[in-house]
Amino acid sequence: MKTIKIGMIGFGAVGSGVVNLFNNMTREIFERVGLSVELVKIAVRNKGKKRSQVFDKNKITEDAFSIVTDPEIDIVVEVMGGEEPAMALILKAISQGKHVVTANKHLLAMRGEEVYSAVESGEVELGFEAAVAGAIPIVRAIRSAFAGDRIDMIQGIVNGTGNYILSRMTSEGKPFNEILKDAQSLGYAESDPAFDIEGIDSAHKVAIMAALAFGTSVNFGSVFIEGITSITPDDISMAREFGLKIKLLATAKRCEGGIEARVHPAMIPQSHFLASVNGAYNAIEIICDNAAKNVLIGPGAGSGPTASAIAGDVIDIACKIARGGAGKTPPMLIPLELRSETKVKAISDMVFEYYLRFTVPDRPGILAKLAGALGEKGISIASMIQRGRQENEPVSVVLTTHSAAEADLDMALEQLKDTDICLAPVTKIRIQKDA
Amino acid sequence: MKTIKIGMIGFGAVGSGVVNLFNNMTREIFERVGLSVELVKIAVRNKGKKRSQVFDKNKITEDAFSIVTDPEIDIVVEVMGGEEPAMALILKAISQGKHVVTANKHLLAMRGEEVYSAVESGEVELGFEAAVAGAIPIVRAIRSAFAGDRIDMIQGIVNGTGNYILSRMTSEGKPFNEILKDAQSLGYAESDPAFDIEGIDSAHKVAIMAALAFGTSVNFGSVFIEGITSITPDDISMAREFGLKIKLLATAKRCEGGIEARVHPAMIPQSHFLASVNGAYNAIEIICDNAAKNVLIGPGAGSGPTASAIAGDVIDIACKIARGGAGKTPPMLIPLELRSETKVKAISDMVFEYYLRFTVPDRPGILAKLAGALGEKGISIASMIQRGRQENEPVSVVLTTHSAAEADLDMALEQLKDTDICLAPVTKIRIQKDA
Repeated sequence: MKTIKIGMIGFGAVGSGVVNLFNNMTREIFERVGLSVELVKIAVRNKGKKRSQVFDKNKITEDAFSIVTDPEIDIVVEVMGGEEPAMALILKAISQGKHVVTANKHLLAMRGEEVYSAVESGEVELGFEAAVAGAIPIVRAIRSAFAGDRIDMIQGIVNGTGNYILSRMTSEGKPFNEILKDAQSLGYAESDPAFDIEGIDSAHKVAIMAALAFGTSVNFGSVFIEGITSITPDDISMAREFGLKIKLLATAKRCEGGIEARVHPAMIPQSHFLASVNGAYNAIEIICDNAAKNVLIGPGAGSGPTASAIAGDVIDIACKIARGGAGKTPPMLIPLELRSETKVKAISDMVFEYYLRFTVPDRPGILAKLAGALGEKGISIASMIQRGRQENEPVSVVLTTHSAAEADLDMALEQLKDTDICLAPVTKIRIQKDA
Repeated sequence: MKTIKIGMIGFGAVGSGVVNLFNNMTREIFERVGLSVELVKIAVRNKGKKRSQVFDKNKITEDAFSIVTDPEIDIVVEVMGGEEPAMALILKAISQGKHVVTANKHLLAMRGEEVYSAVESGEVELGFEAAVAGAIPIVRAIRSAFAGDRIDMIQGIVNGTGNYILSRMTSEGKPFNEILKDAQSLGYAESDPAFDIEGIDSAHKVAIMAALAFGTSVNFGSVFIEGITSITPDDISMAREFGLKIKLLATAKRCEGGIEARVHPAMIPQSHFLASVNGAYNAIEIICDNAAKNVLIGPGAGSGPTASAIAGDVIDIACKIARGGAGKTPPMLIPLELRSETKVKAISDMVFEYYLRFTVPDRPGILAKLAGALGEKGISIASMIQRGRQENEPVSVVLTTHSAAEADLDMALEQLKDTDICLAPVTKIRIQKDA
């Protein structure tokens, strides 16, 4: 039996999870399947760094290119993250006929087309289950389980950090910055949390899922992205009054003339199952023409779950290497030359109901002016709430609208912006009652 | 491009779903993937029967064996159900080098070993995603996504009919028989509902999942099975008082010295996610050493979802036929010769907390006798509730116990059975607070 040799690039949290799994389960799992698989080399940035997992120092290198060019290595596991040098390393590995398993959502979202094309023409395997929502088997669900059906929508919560912060803001009523700081000290948010709280990480996953589900390339720049940094405890408690809850939703959806690919906070009914997914959990619903609604829930990140996803991909690829069939099926299922190019709809062309929070002077006639400006653009108001009056202080007025085109709403808000009735930027949150 | 030809056996609800999918999506889906796949022949019991789906009458036959021996056919889709003649047909198809896709949980639970062995030695593919919980991608999750991890437990609600009945009993407070009749008239339960309400259908799925997850054969006779027919509205409302809800749980679990494989009603905390899975939905949690808890939810049955699962398997196999690699990986992932035989633990050797409902005469000293009989076997009582006294009528006494060995409890109940204080069979429901 040929031993299948793995080289890994990166030995951070995820890399440590992979080493832990190989240290403790190699025999039990791979040999059980009738395979001999060995982790033979790891590339790191700093060889001297102390590590939580035991791994033979002689097999650790600071030269990542020595892994992707090592003729002994069959599968390269890339867990270093980021665009470069990960991209150069992966392309080099493919050019050397090596199969690749990666957890790098950033790279696949930004430059997936180059990777998929190299994988396809190089006739190697690409495993990327770990790149989307940890161990939740969403890549297999889209690429294989629901591949014979028509996927109409994929929607969910795919960023654990953002969901953790929103969940705590909701249960504790505390402001964003306070919870963020606490999340950072507890290790739930990184010291630079931008990707998580600004929706970029969720958008990476949307781009990858949309490309896979709809058989098209997705230009990352066309994904609409809005984060959670401007959500306040007031917005959350107002939502509660309406029977709604705020979640950072990631959506990839088939629509007339193209697809939607967007990430933004949304108010959804408290009775919707996504409303009860709290903490660092991820949840993704897949709506198909025949299979109807299926939902996958799990820890969307973390060393253990991500390592588990990587190990699943390694097993799949090792089986194919040992038994035949490796490199035969395109990474995106549909051969790139057969894919159709699909337009990503602009957010301005979409229609939602809206929650709008205005900060206005406390004097008569303000509501008439707000309603007038909205009415001029054909936007009608569904409800109005004003709370907490204090003499001579600005007050918050919350309006919800009936369905309106985002472009019309933005024009109305633009016109109100420079008047003396808008004392602060308007908070706009999309309401998805049929989420 | 070679056209991959499908022959189907059975044209009932699921078969109609498959035909519908082929009629409406063949071009869009298979051609998109770069495959040419055609449904060329269907075997039925009665050619004259009217059908909801259009299919060329010249391609319908009453001779199922003509499909499994047709040299033109590459993949046989078996949706007739039952043990025979399905088994003979599948074995014949395999012997002719045909790949098989089946939705037949009954067959795989009872005679899976024969099927897997024939598939493995015949070097063909077996797709059986449709056999467990409709389109929920549980087979792929176990066989591939979590294959590099150690699966510790699979637990869930895997029978939609049973869950529909229990859900309505819970929300409406009506007795089992009334809801069952209504479910039958609405098409949620079959005219012969035994497999669903007696837990057998769930047990079929447990047997298949346990064999796959734990790499062992599972003798169907060793799966513990208890249905929902003796659950009363009283039990449901008592559960509510304890903060619990009754669900028909299917469990496959790694334990000391073997595995657990069991189906029975259980009282679980109302806050557990399985408690909020209502109606005909299925939900399965998979707990792994590294991936922690992941959950899959979806419609566990029905023509559309089951057809979708079949189409996913057909795509996977067609890709392998067209591009290489078909028949190389064993159907159970682990080659049969490498599997270990694992003991299925007897229910009498397990430990639970229990809910016990006694029907006793309304006179002093009864509780002392019940407590005494239980105490003699080392079983201690956690709570006691008696409701609804009527002069000279038997009354219900409900006891809950602390953790106790099932064998001890059964002995205590056996001793009480023939005394004058048990006027009707005792209802025993396992409580799983840490479900």
